[in-house]
This record gives sequence, structure tokens and C-alpha cells, in this order.
Amino acid sequence: MLGHSFDGEIKIGGNYVPIVRDHHQVFVSGQIPRVGNTVVVTGAAGSEVDLKSAQTAAKICAMRALALLQRSLGSLDNVRSIVRITVFVRSAPDFTQQSEVADGASEVLFRVLGDAGAHTRTSVGVLQLPKGATVEIDLIASTASVDA
Amino acid sequence: MLGHSFDGEIKIGGNYVPIVRDHHQVFVSGQIPRVGNTVVVTGAAGSEVDLKSAQTAAKICAMRALALLQRSLGSLDNVRSIVRITVFVRSAPDFTQQSEVADGASEVLFRVLGDAGAHTRTSVGVLQLPKGATVEIDLIASTASVDA
Amino acid sequence: MLGHSFDGEIKIGGNYVPIVRDHHQVFVSGQIPRVGNTVVVTGAAGSEVDLKSAQTAAKICAMRALALLQRSLGSLDNVRSIVRITVFVRSAPDFTQQSEVADGASEVLFRVLGDAGAHTRTSVGVLQLPKGATVEIDLIASTASVDA
Repeated sequence: MLGHSFDGEIKIGGNYVPIVRDHHQVFVSGQIPRVGNTVVVTGAAGSEVDLKSAQTAAKICAMRALALLQRSLGSLDNVRSIVRITVFVRSAPDFTQQSEVADGASEVLFRVLGDAGAHTRTSVGVLQLPKGATVEIDLIASTASVDA
Repeated sequence: MLGHSFDGEIKIGGNYVPIVRDHHQVFVSGQIPRVGNTVVVTGAAGSEVDLKSAQTAAKICAMRALALLQRSLGSLDNVRSIVRITVFVRSAPDFTQQSEVADGASEVLFRVLGDAGAHTRTSVGVLQLPKGATVEIDLIASTASVDA
Repeated sequence: MLGHSFDGEIKIGGNYVPIVRDHHQVFVSGQIPRVGNTVVVTGAAGSEVDLKSAQTAAKICAMRALALLQRSLGSLDNVRSIVRITVFVRSAPDFTQQSEVADGASEVLFRVLGDAGAHTRTSVGVLQLPKGATVEIDLIASTASVDA
């Protein structure tokens, strides 16, 4: 999907972890559109980056989150629902299509997870993101199994 | 309240849903100050929009979230607590009264829900919001019943 | 730690609360680098505030959150994990080291809580924050005990 491999190790910097399981919920750290060691979409949506590229960035963030979920849960079949995604879009001052950018991520979740991909969503336009990324997305999933 | 009707259908764009229930928690998607099909408060707080209007925007967002909770739960009596609201305020560069804007939403939650309206809150100033809205608010509620 | 006392009363404005417990989870309101009544680090990271000072701001926010958790839970021994922190960094337009700023908070959580300090993290760069603060952090903790 999207022509990228998400099978390799996902590296993160700093003293935090990509996933924390808490009972039936799984929290995933904010994902930027990184493929391997490269952030592949950078710049402000609406000026340096057009809508379509920003949507691609959102898709990559969602794919990374799904790859992390799969590794943690063994299979995406164990995802009961995606309860929340928050989509931060690095935006030009007059760019107001944050929801349209986020649609890229929502589409991935629905396509991969089906009904379990239904989610609540919050999309906002921010001034900057780590590494100059165009999009950052975090999410909370719910699982059938419980890690108590 | 606020002279607006929140009884009509609340439309959302894109492939996501306004509410996801996860066991005892209810997640509500980010709400902007939309009444019917119109976003009634747009622009940056502190330049295009004064504090009082931004607070009104926050109140409308909170009312929309409550309307969604009511529809999902049957009655707001089933709200045990509002565990978190996040208030994104589209801000002029030198506007630092995001907490005061958020007070508009907090006031609505307390007035409508009483003690169950007690909530944690995070207020931040962002560059842009969908449709140019002045405020966007999402929340997590806790209920007495469990949707397992 | 950090040469500041966090034993005094932590005051907040508005109609919200610093902590809400929901079953095994504890939600902490957004914390800014306030010591007593003073916000000790203000301004945009990358222009008015250097990386090291912004990291100090993040450490203070994390310490405040821990102080609130300790008061609510009696002891930090009752923290099972920190499931999520969200780090909002007031940023200059070209500042992209939000993750490095957040490392200040992550370091505090690990140093104080040990393994229980492992957390997921989302770091974003915003235009403004309440009182002009350089950093705002909220978090969700998980506890062994249940407040049902």
C-alpha cells in the first residue's frame, strides 16, 4: 500500500515508547510521515505542500500507526475499534483544509480495518511539527483482549 | 441555551464518526462552532475575534459535544464525568488568553452537568482550524453503563 | 529536583479541575511551567527561548503533573504506567526540535518513575500557549487501583 514498506524497524528518538497497552486500550505515539530514516513529506500545507501531498503524508502516518498496532497485537484482527485519532497538520496561515488532509488517514483506517476502523477525529492546524513534518497523527485503539 | 438549536442532525465530513463508545468511555470528535451548516465564529482570537466572541465559540462547541453525548447515551444523566476536554483556540500571534476562551466551554459543562461536569482541560493556541473556525474542542466522557 | 518546590498548592483558573480519575486511569490537566504564581519560562522556542530553557520548561511541566498525581494517588508507587503525554511547544516558525524539547519531560518521567515512566508521546509546535508559556503538557496515567 502506498508503495512503501512498513516492515522495517520503526526508530524513535528520546526516552519514550511507540506503544503503551493499558487494559483494553492501546496508545500509539505521534507518527510523522517517516519512511525508513527519512521524513518524506515536510513543509507547510497550503504553501510548500499541496493538499494531495499532505493527504499522502496523513496516509503514511496512519500506516505507521497500523504497523505498530500489528506488531504489538500480533494481528490487526485484534483491533476492536480506533477510538480516537488526532491529526496535527502543519499549515500555512490561511490554510483551512485540515479535515481534508485528515481524510487521508481516515481512508486508510477504513480500508484496512473495515468497520473496526470507525473512529473519532480531531484535526488542527499547527505552526510546526518535529523534523518539519507536514502531518503528525496519534491514536488510541481498543482491543478485544485485555492487558491488565 | 445560547439561542441556538442543537436538535438537528450534526453533519460531519469525511470517513469518521462523531462518537465512539469504548467500554465506559465515550470519545467525541473535535467540534467547531457550527450551527446547522454554518461555522458561526471564524477568525483568529485576539485580532479578528474578541475574547467574548471566542468564548461564545467555545460554548457552542461544548453544546455540540453535549448534544452528541445525549443522543448516544439517551440522556445526559448517564454521564458520570467529563474526563478530558482539549480546547484548540485559533490565535493571533500575541494572544495568550486561551484559558479564558476555554472557560466558556467549562462553564457550559458545569451548568448543564453539575458535578458530573468536572473535567480536566488542556488549552492551546493554534495557527489554524478547519473552516477557519476560532475554536475546536474534543472530549472524553465517562459513563456509568458499559458498552463492552 | 530542578531546584523548585512543588509542595505548595497548585492553583488553576477557571471551572475545571487538575485531576480526574476514571476507573484505573488518571487524567491530568495541561500543565505550564508555573512555579508558585509565576510562569517561569515564556516565549517561543527557537527565537526568544533556547532549546535548553525549553527543555527546562518541559521538565517543570512534568514535575507539576507528577506532583498532582502524587497528591491524588497518595504515592507515585501507585502509578502503573504513563500511557500518554502530549507536549505542546510554543515555537518560532522555523523551530523543528519539538521532540528534543519533549525529551526534557520524558527524562523526568523515567528518572522519577523508572519502568512505570514508559509512555507514548506526541510533540507539536504551536503558535501560542496560555500566559505565553513556552511548553504545555498533559498526560494520562494508569494505576493499579480502580476508582469505579
